[in-house]
Order: sequence, then structure tokens, then C-alpha cells
Amino acid sequence: MAEQAETAVGNWGRWGPEDERGTLNLIDAKGVAAAAHEVRTGQAYALGLPIQREGAPIFDYRGAPQRLTLTSQTDNMFDDFPGGTEVGANEDVLVIASHSITHMDALCHVQHRGKFYNGFDASTFRTHTGAARCGIEKIGAFAARAVLLDLPRFKDVAFLEPGYTITRADLEGCAAAQGVEVRAGDALLVRTGHLDNFRAETSAGREVPFAQAGLGLDAVSFIREHDIAAVGSDNSAIEVIPFDDNVFLSVHIALLVELGVPLMEHLWLSDLAAGMAEAGTYACLLTVTPLPVTGATGSPINPVAIV
Amino acid sequence: MAEQAETAVGNWGRWGPEDERGTLNLIDAKGVAAAAHEVRTGQAYALGLPIQREGAPIFDYRGAPQRLTLTSQTDNMFDDFPGGTEVGANEDVLVIASHSITHMDALCHVQHRGKFYNGFDASTFRTHTGAARCGIEKIGAFAARAVLLDLPRFKDVAFLEPGYTITRADLEGCAAAQGVEVRAGDALLVRTGHLDNFRAETSAGREVPFAQAGLGLDAVSFIREHDIAAVGSDNSAIEVIPFDDNVFLSVHIALLVELGVPLMEHLWLSDLAAGMAEAGTYACLLTVTPLPVTGATGSPINPVAIV
Amino acid sequence: MAEQAETAVGNWGRWGPEDERGTLNLIDAKGVAAAAHEVRTGQAYALGLPIQREGAPIFDYRGAPQRLTLTSQTDNMFDDFPGGTEVGANEDVLVIASHSITHMDALCHVQHRGKFYNGFDASTFRTHTGAARCGIEKIGAFAARAVLLDLPRFKDVAFLEPGYTITRADLEGCAAAQGVEVRAGDALLVRTGHLDNFRAETSAGREVPFAQAGLGLDAVSFIREHDIAAVGSDNSAIEVIPFDDNVFLSVHIALLVELGVPLMEHLWLSDLAAGMAEAGTYACLLTVTPLPVTGATGSPINPVAIV
Amino acid sequence: MAEQAETAVGNWGRWGPEDERGTLNLIDAKGVAAAAHEVRTGQAYALGLPIQREGAPIFDYRGAPQRLTLTSQTDNMFDDFPGGTEVGANEDVLVIASHSITHMDALCHVQHRGKFYNGFDASTFRTHTGAARCGIEKIGAFAARAVLLDLPRFKDVAFLEPGYTITRADLEGCAAAQGVEVRAGDALLVRTGHLDNFRAETSAGREVPFAQAGLGLDAVSFIREHDIAAVGSDNSAIEVIPFDDNVFLSVHIALLVELGVPLMEHLWLSDLAAGMAEAGTYACLLTVTPLPVTGATGSPINPVAIV
Repeated sequence: MAEQAETAVGNWGRWGPEDERGTLNLIDAKGVAAAAHEVRTGQAYALGLPIQREGAPIFDYRGAPQRLTLTSQTDNMFDDFPGGTEVGANEDVLVIASHSITHMDALCHVQHRGKFYNGFDASTFRTHTGAARCGIEKIGAFAARAVLLDLPRFKDVAFLEPGYTITRADLEGCAAAQGVEVRAGDALLVRTGHLDNFRAETSAGREVPFAQAGLGLDAVSFIREHDIAAVGSDNSAIEVIPFDDNVFLSVHIALLVELGVPLMEHLWLSDLAAGMAEAGTYACLLTVTPLPVTGATGSPINPVAIV
Repeated sequence: MAEQAETAVGNWGRWGPEDERGTLNLIDAKGVAAAAHEVRTGQAYALGLPIQREGAPIFDYRGAPQRLTLTSQTDNMFDDFPGGTEVGANEDVLVIASHSITHMDALCHVQHRGKFYNGFDASTFRTHTGAARCGIEKIGAFAARAVLLDLPRFKDVAFLEPGYTITRADLEGCAAAQGVEVRAGDALLVRTGHLDNFRAETSAGREVPFAQAGLGLDAVSFIREHDIAAVGSDNSAIEVIPFDDNVFLSVHIALLVELGVPLMEHLWLSDLAAGMAEAGTYACLLTVTPLPVTGATGSPINPVAIV
Repeated sequence: MAEQAETAVGNWGRWGPEDERGTLNLIDAKGVAAAAHEVRTGQAYALGLPIQREGAPIFDYRGAPQRLTLTSQTDNMFDDFPGGTEVGANEDVLVIASHSITHMDALCHVQHRGKFYNGFDASTFRTHTGAARCGIEKIGAFAARAVLLDLPRFKDVAFLEPGYTITRADLEGCAAAQGVEVRAGDALLVRTGHLDNFRAETSAGREVPFAQAGLGLDAVSFIREHDIAAVGSDNSAIEVIPFDDNVFLSVHIALLVELGVPLMEHLWLSDLAAGMAEAGTYACLLTVTPLPVTGATGSPINPVAIV
Repeated sequence: MAEQAETAVGNWGRWGPEDERGTLNLIDAKGVAAAAHEVRTGQAYALGLPIQREGAPIFDYRGAPQRLTLTSQTDNMFDDFPGGTEVGANEDVLVIASHSITHMDALCHVQHRGKFYNGFDASTFRTHTGAARCGIEKIGAFAARAVLLDLPRFKDVAFLEPGYTITRADLEGCAAAQGVEVRAGDALLVRTGHLDNFRAETSAGREVPFAQAGLGLDAVSFIREHDIAAVGSDNSAIEVIPFDDNVFLSVHIALLVELGVPLMEHLWLSDLAAGMAEAGTYACLLTVTPLPVTGATGSPINPVAIV
């Protein structure tokens, strides 16, 4: 009974009891081919923010990413080899939180009442070996048709007010105004303008308040009914902060845990939005490329959108 | 005079004295659009190997990549928030060499006689702040048309003999046999079968000798004359080991330093090759997504090829 | 009732229900002063092995310790300051397992049946914040009188046979033969010769089998009855491997969990043993200096013994 | 000639051209034994500050130290062994700058005009392998008699004014007032009260200005003429900030580079000072225990002083 109740949650069981990819199952190769054929300019936009200690949106508990030098011109590693004294190699080591700056949440990132997406138990995650279920390597890199909804443009503001809750009506109105069709298996990119504001404020040496515009629970139905495969946004958590319904991570629970929708956070969407406006389309071909770290709960990403 | 001599090296100066992107300048949005329009099946292939301590091609001096847990179900981080006791987040920290497993070399990765690509001095690399010139963030993520040359299939072997030097004639013969056109601005993917052999030997508990098939200096002219934008292969160094001409990193010097061609190493090309054979094409749309770490000399990557 | 049963385990409750220092409570300042006054030569011996990737006893799952350079002579960090162009600083970052090479186990290192020393629940350890109870910072650095029992010398062998179980009779016989008095609050240093063998075998390029001589359960009564404050040895786990009584970590359970005795592993005792033999004493003044990392389960150490 | 001039610098050449230990050569076992015999109470004081992200004196460019969990109660590492299901181990990985919080500077930490102590060339430090000369492992752990000069007590203030330059006369006056004899081979511990002020201000949520009381160049003669073996203080750089003589790191250059005196920074001296006042002595037995990381430029330490 309890089992049955559980499998009734969102998309749990929809792709079988062993599924670990969630709504990425909705991506269809034909749809990707169609998106490729609709490419207009061939211009590619990288959606990852610079990875560096300063000027990036970083949560303290994750630590700032560190690039350390592994080898440099001071080393004489190759001196014993023919020609080795004339050549040198520079290499780095990165110490980086999986959820640093621009990143993707794996389906094991958040658990609710002890369960991940599809009812997998939270105890399947172990400290040393990581996620046995729904790790980022189960998602892998993928391509999808993507639709960008540029809400600040739609609402004629520079950025949505911090704390503004994006509704289903906002998404529908914006899509209609942009004249873009949302299809099953699409990735949905929601621009709030948060990072533009973050950059402006940070450059000016001002603290950025944590409140952010983002999706509310009402918007989840838009994602569910359109069978969206993945959602990305230019804010810290996809969802509005303070959290909707006054429940911590309420939209993460609805999207990541219940529906199995992987999330992309801190995407830099403003250049893409400008390019799309110029190209006269709000659909593009998107590739998302998490590092396939076995057992990891997420990965920094640098997606590419081709308009 | 010395200056003039320098600018006569390979592609130095070709895109101006400040250029830090090398042959990536050859990529043209129209060519990318054309590649997108030629997509056949829409099937996407991820080219990154699993990132893990065991069973991966790792050089000792780089250390094995480590996934460490930052937060787990044992933490009660959100207990003070509404609903916070019912929700938890798992996160990781990665400690990973920039040139781990499947990765891209930035143009500052190798210096020859104290110079990087375009004549930038090796001293522009600093230990603490990294590369001031030709760092991986100057490359960024990009899309390109890519051509795969499947040499083992062309030569009807499971994998090229370790130490086999791939020649220009091999590349031309393979392209002709495959019926694929190589265009300016293409990425070139060269399959040697090395990783297939590595996996088989490693699974069987056997040591894999370091000798590998790869490009020789003769093959460089193919890349130069076809104006290839980037080169990737399924071996450790793109180039044949032992090194051609008995000069340490001789092909890296020719490609990375002299021509400014970014390199992708340890690409998993076998699934892509099989998919291409089935789709009847050896061209695809490729996106390459290094993490934009400021000042880094390379990045792990997980490129996506759409056939 | 269950509570009462719990407090009957070993030293649980002996220093109150909130105690997190275990047998370190047995150290008495007067005893330390007495040990200082008995110092003979003033010669100091460092007991830590070199911390490096190669030639050190490292368990794979902990990873080899890494020293990475943070700043070097390539950096011009101080150029903007008066005299700054003439001065430079080299610094490192260490990535090191807390139980690397020569280290100390905090009392939270091992749990048995869900409990740490003194009955603290294993769930008091959290992934992100570490040990709330019995972390290494609760031990802190300390001084103690220490007695070295040099078993290979006692038994006239170069090193104890791998897998040899050290008994109470061995310890008593060795102490008697050495003419050394064991006092309450002493640290006990047990030399097995394992590291001498490890070094010889490793230098010769041979694999060292994992079996090691070490303390058995029978020897635990010696430690308990003499009210030993801390135990160190020159092997990997203090205890014999394969484990005594065929129970995994059986002596760790008895010493660390039940008695609250902090353990020091991979101590280099051979130079100290030789110095003591020459000085004609097997007692010394020992200082043990774990890094006070808040919430950590252990720390690399480099103790100093003054003979 | 140039060679001769070089060897005339400070202590360069004093212990031979290959010496890498500097003034630690001044420590004499007999002096250590004498210090041991003069121990009064046997009370041990740990001089290391807590190692944690918050509330510690950390320089941004070094990054905050991180304790990450390697294994925890969520892992079932030992399940396959006899008794293994009933036992678990918690372990950590530390990512920590060598010069974090309470630490020791190796003699290769600072170079002046391209030279380390004893004239070793700055180029002997390499990024990958670290210091070939004067690394921390050449210092090793050591014991010494130590004298504490408690300047705030001497001057009857809570802490020395930030930016106050401690002179030779201050040190002599304080030693005389305290009635303590300074001997050749002693470690010198200079209390400024900076950390007391740092803690108070930090607890109150206030920023601590970077200016600090510390040694000036005038005080260097005190150290040289008394043949001090090592110097420690409770501030960030031993020396006064802003730097004396308006030369960046001027006292580091004089002590570390010219005289070969290893430095200990951010020592917590206040509890020791109180204990000494009570015991009626300002001399103690000190052990300093840097981690012997091969090639490292420094190490976090947690010295123990026995009064």
C-alpha cells in the first residue's frame, strides 16, 4: 500500500522502477534532429559563468573553487627525454564543489522524506562511494531542443524583482508573446535577469540580497503538462527565494524529486537571449555536458546553445 | 627581427598578435548551421569517459580524481527552516587534475623554447593566478562540424598497433574510404582503438603498455592544409608514443604551439563510430564544453556529438 | 536499563557522561614533570614518516597525500609594494587524508554497534560539519611520559613475523627485560619492526603483504590494567592483521571504543629505539600534536620524543 | 667575489654551504635536557588555534581550510568481513594551505633577490616537486628551550597597539622585568596580544584591521646576538605591519633569509603566558612539530609548551 502510494508520486514509476534519468527519457532523437534542422544562424552561446574565486555567485558552505598549479615552467619534467629541455607543460588541479557556480543537479541531489526521485531510498547515497542511484553519471551529457523564456523582456524590466514568484501564467504569456512553441522533450530556459543584477551589484561593490525571482509551485504544472525534459535558469535555485508556500526547497521537491526533472542553475542566459531576439527565434539546439563523475550529485557545466 | 622570425612560426600572427584562440577562429557560424542541417538521426553521443579512481586512464603524477562528499543525509542543514526537517541535499567536492581522463588542452598547456602559441612568453603563466594568456577560458565552449576518421575500421583491425605512427596518407585514405568531406573549420576526431584495448586489458587485470598509436608529424600537414579547428583522439596525447622524430611531444609542439590547434584527449569514440556507421555518415555536429576556469591550462570535458 | 548496560562498557562513564578525552584524562601534570626530570640526553626524535606520494604506507581508498604549490617565484604578488619586486613567497596547499601515513585516531574514528566511546551515538558525526563528539580537537596536543617496548630487540629478530599476535606476556616480558617501569598515564609505544620491513621491501621494489604483527585482544588487558593513556605503534592499525578473534578491527573496538584510548599509527620508532638503547632508558618525554581541526576524526602527526 | 659577498650575508655559510636548517643548528641536546629538568608544573599548553573555516585568521588568497568527510557511518566498507557489519570508520580529507592559521615557515618560504637562506637559488623551488632546498622536511620536528616575552603584560596593556614596532629595548626590558634568562639555542616566543584582540573583535562581528604590532628590524639584533634558534609570535607575520623600514616583509628577509631563523605564526600564547605567570617562570620546554611534507614550504603546527 505504502509502495503504491509512493509510486503515485509525480513521475515515479513512469519509466519503470529502475529508472534513474527521469524526464530526460522524454528527449527523442527525432526532436533533436528537428531542432538541429531549425538552427538559424549557427551561432553558439556558452552558458557557463567564469569559474573563479572572485565575482562569482558562491555559497560559503561550498567554498570558492580553487585552481592550483600542478606543473609549470619551473619544472624540468622532461629533461631526460630527447628534446625534453626545450618543452614544458602547464597543468592544474581543480578543487571545486559539484554545485559550484553554473552547474547541474543530479536527481540524487535532493531527497524528501527519505526518498529520491522514483522512490529510491536516501540511504543509497554513501559518503565514500557516493550515489548508487541517480548519480550524475546516469544523466550523462545530452542534447535537446530548448526554449528560452525571457521574462524581463516580456515584462519590460531589467530584471524581475527579487522574491518575485514566476507563475504558470507568466510562462504561458511569455511563450505566446515570443511566438515560440513549447514541445514535449524540450529543455526550458527561464531568464529572470538575476545574474545581470548580481553582476552589476557586485561590480559596484554592493552586497546582493539573497532573495531572487524564480519559479513558484504554480509554474510546476506548466513543466509537467508540457513534458519538459530539463529546466535551467539564471538564478541560484531555479525557484523563487524566499521559497514558495514557505516550504524549504519546495520547487526542488516538486521538480527534482517528484517529477525527476534535472535542474541547471546559474546559467548565463543574457547573451543567448540577445542573440535569439536578433535571430528571431526563441528555440535553439542545446547540449548539456555534466562531467560523468561516478556517484556524484551534480557537476559544473558549460552548456552550449546553438541558435 | 626576432619578432618577425617568431611571427613566421605556423599560425603565429595569423589572427593578430593578441589572438588566444588559434584555429578556433576558423569556425564559422554558417558552417555550424550547415552541420546542424545535415544532422541525420538526432542521436547524441557523449564522448567523456567515466571519471573515477579505478579503471580510468590516469597518469600517476596527476593523481586520481577524487569525489568527496560535501553534504549528505547525515546533515541537518535545513532543520531551522519551514519544512526543512523533511528535505536534505547531497553535494560533492571534486579534486581533479585539469588534464584528467577525457580533457581538452588549452593553448597554454605546452610551451616550446619558452613560447606558447602566437609567441606569448611562457612567463605569462604564473603559479598562483595561472595563465594570463591562452587559458582555457579564452577557448570557451564551442560548436563545430566534426569529422570522425575511424582508422581501425579502415584498416580492418580491432585497434592500431601500439606505437603505430598515423600518416597523412592514412588520414586521406580513411576519409576517402569513408566518403566524408573534410572542410575548413571542422573538428577532426581520430579513432585509433587505443581505449578499446585499454579497457579490455584493464578489465582482464593486465597492465597496458604506454606505447600508443597516434598522429605523427607527417599528419600535421593534413590538419594544417584542411584548416582543422580542433583535433581529438581516443589516446593519451593525440600523437604517437614513442614520440615521432624522437622529440618529446613533437606533435603537441607542431599542433598546439605552432598552429594553435586545441587538443582533446581520451575521447570515447567507439559508440559514436558505430552510430555513424549505422547512420551512413562520418560528419556530425560537435559541441565541446571545457569548464571556463579562469587561468586554467585545460579542463575535463564531456563533448556531445549529434549524428 | 539499556543506559546502565552501556555505561558498563570499558571506561564508558568513568570520567562522566560528557567526557570526550578518554584515557588522556589519566595524564597527570606531575607525571609529565617527573618524566621531564628523568630526561637523560635531551636528544629529540621525530616519529613522523615523510609525507609524500611515493614510498609511504598508503591505503588506496585514502588517496596519496598531495602537496600542490599555491604561490611561487613565478608570481609577482608583492610588486605593488615598496621593495616588493625583490621578494617572493612560496606556499603550498596540502590535500591529505586525516589518517594518512603517521597519524592519530580520534575517539570518533571508529564506531561499534552505532556507538563511539562513552556511548555517544554514531549519528553525532555528520558529513558536512564532522564530529560533534570526540573529534580530534577534543584531544588536542598533549605531553606524556612514554615507554617504548622494542619487541624485535626483545625477541632478537629484525621484525616480528607478519601476522604475529602480540600478547600480554610479550609486553610484560619485554618491559621486564628492558627494566622499564610502566606507570599510569603513560603513552605506550610498541615497536614491531613492520615499517623497517616495509621500507626494505619497498626500496627493493617488492610488494609488502598486508599481514602485520600487532597487538591482540589479550594485550588489551595490559593497557587497561596499567591505565595507559595512549598507544602508538609502527604498523598500520596498532593491532595484528589478520584481526584477532577473526573480528574486523577487534582491537580498535576494545581500545578506541570501549576504553577510549587514542591510537597513533605508522610511528617511526626505530631511531628512537636505538637512541634509547644507547641512553640506557626506555622511558621518554613524548609530545603528540594532532592538528586541531574542528570536527575531524584524526590528524597526521609528527610526535617528538625526548630521551 | 660575488660568491664571497653572498656568504657574508647573515648566517649564510655559518654551518657550511649545504646547510638547510639555519639557526636550528644552535639547538643543543644538553640545553634541551636542562630545559626539561627545569620544568616546574608539568602542565602542557597547545599553541595551535582551531583549524576551521570561521573565526580563524585566514588570508583570502590561501583559502579557508576544508575538512571533508572521506568515510562515515553511511558506508558499509567492512560488511564483507567477519564482524564487519557492526563496525564503521569515520575519516576525513583535509584541504589546507601550508601557511594556514597556526603554522611554521620553512626556510624556503621567502626568497629575496632570487636567493633563499644560505644562498640557495630561488629556482631550486619547482611547482610540481616543491623545494629541493630548505623544505619543511629539512627542519623536521624539534624540541627546544623556549622563552616567552609577554609584552602586553610588560607594558600593562591588553594588547599592543596595531602597527606598534617592537624594538630591541622592548625585548630586553621585558626579559629583565620577567627575570628570565635568554640562552643560545632558545626559541623566542613574543606575545603581542594581537590574537586576543582578533578574537574579541571577530566575536563581536567587527572587522579586524590588518595593521598589527610585531617585531621591527631593530629587534633582529636581539635575536642574532642571543643566537635564537626559532621565533614565534601571536600575530600574522612575526613582524610589524605596516612593514618596518617601509620594505615589504623586511623582517622576514632579515630573519628567514639572512639569518635562517624559522618562524612560527599565529601561535596562541595567552594561556601559556597565564600559566607561566602562575608557575613563576617564563622559560619552558617547547616541541614544534611541522608535518614532514617532502618539498613543502611550511606546515600547520600545534606546538606543545611544557611549563
